[in-house]
Amino acid sequence: MTPAQSSALVLSPEQFLQHWQGHRGLTRRVIDAFPDDKLFTYSVGNMRPFSTLAMEFVGMGVPTLNGVITKEWKSYAAPEAKTKADILKLWDETTAEINTLWPTIPPARFQEVDKAFGQWEMTIYALLLYVVDNEIHHRGQGYVYLRSLGVEPPPFYER
Amino acid sequence: MTPAQSSALVLSPEQFLQHWQGHRGLTRRVIDAFPDDKLFTYSVGNMRPFSTLAMEFVGMGVPTLNGVITKEWKSYAAPEAKTKADILKLWDETTAEINTLWPTIPPARFQEVDKAFGQWEMTIYALLLYVVDNEIHHRGQGYVYLRSLGVEPPPFYER
Repeated sequence: MTPAQSSALVLSPEQFLQHWQGHRGLTRRVIDAFPDDKLFTYSVGNMRPFSTLAMEFVGMGVPTLNGVITKEWKSYAAPEAKTKADILKLWDETTAEINTLWPTIPPARFQEVDKAFGQWEMTIYALLLYVVDNEIHHRGQGYVYLRSLGVEPPPFYER
Repeated sequence: MTPAQSSALVLSPEQFLQHWQGHRGLTRRVIDAFPDDKLFTYSVGNMRPFSTLAMEFVGMGVPTLNGVITKEWKSYAAPEAKTKADILKLWDETTAEINTLWPTIPPARFQEVDKAFGQWEMTIYALLLYVVDNEIHHRGQGYVYLRSLGVEPPPFYER
């Protein structure tokens, strides 16, 4: 690594937020692409239905950001949702909360190491990437559910 | 966005490389988890077999990096691979090439806009994230293939 490169700006906090919300917008379209009942009942290979995965994402986002900002990691449970409309409502509330919380992350936090929720010790930027990557990973699983249901999923490259 | 936050270091180029190679290491274990024949023949929902997806990743990595570094976008074709061993060999060659090329990315490039392969106009950091995200997305698809084959996939959180 040259010294010049190691001080390079890869992406700004604002660009990271845009990256995350771009993926969240795509996940919202994937949730919406499921037939209402299949969202809660369908899976392949004995895996979890997409409603459960979507609620995992809802359960991770704001609690993780709160921990990043306050250094207090409160245990959380994903709220209950019984219909697609419930999930989409929680999704949109989360979107707004993330946008409000993000600019309050102390700038030095991205490079600090912390033990998230008392369990996962890692640098904060890696924790935030993990939250995004976990969503991409499980959403990829949702694409297979949709395809095997004969439903065309939204294009992956559209954010 | 506070001015303080907008100049914050989110992650360094070296940390980005580590992020990418961490995911590539996991994808290698997913390739290896497939029974040899199923890697080339099995899929769910009429999607592509995992061998084809793995070769897409091989076909994207180094050509993208070369374009990032040289600003010349040469069209590419993923090389042919007929066995799991072929794919893993190409995988490991790519791993070494990425490690060699990465430190030669000019520091200012991450924030430059370019039209990758004459088609995809975006900021370079977003292009590099896209390459990683595309691998996470399709690897999530591979997890469903493995589960539906009764094979336990490697843990997602291990890099």
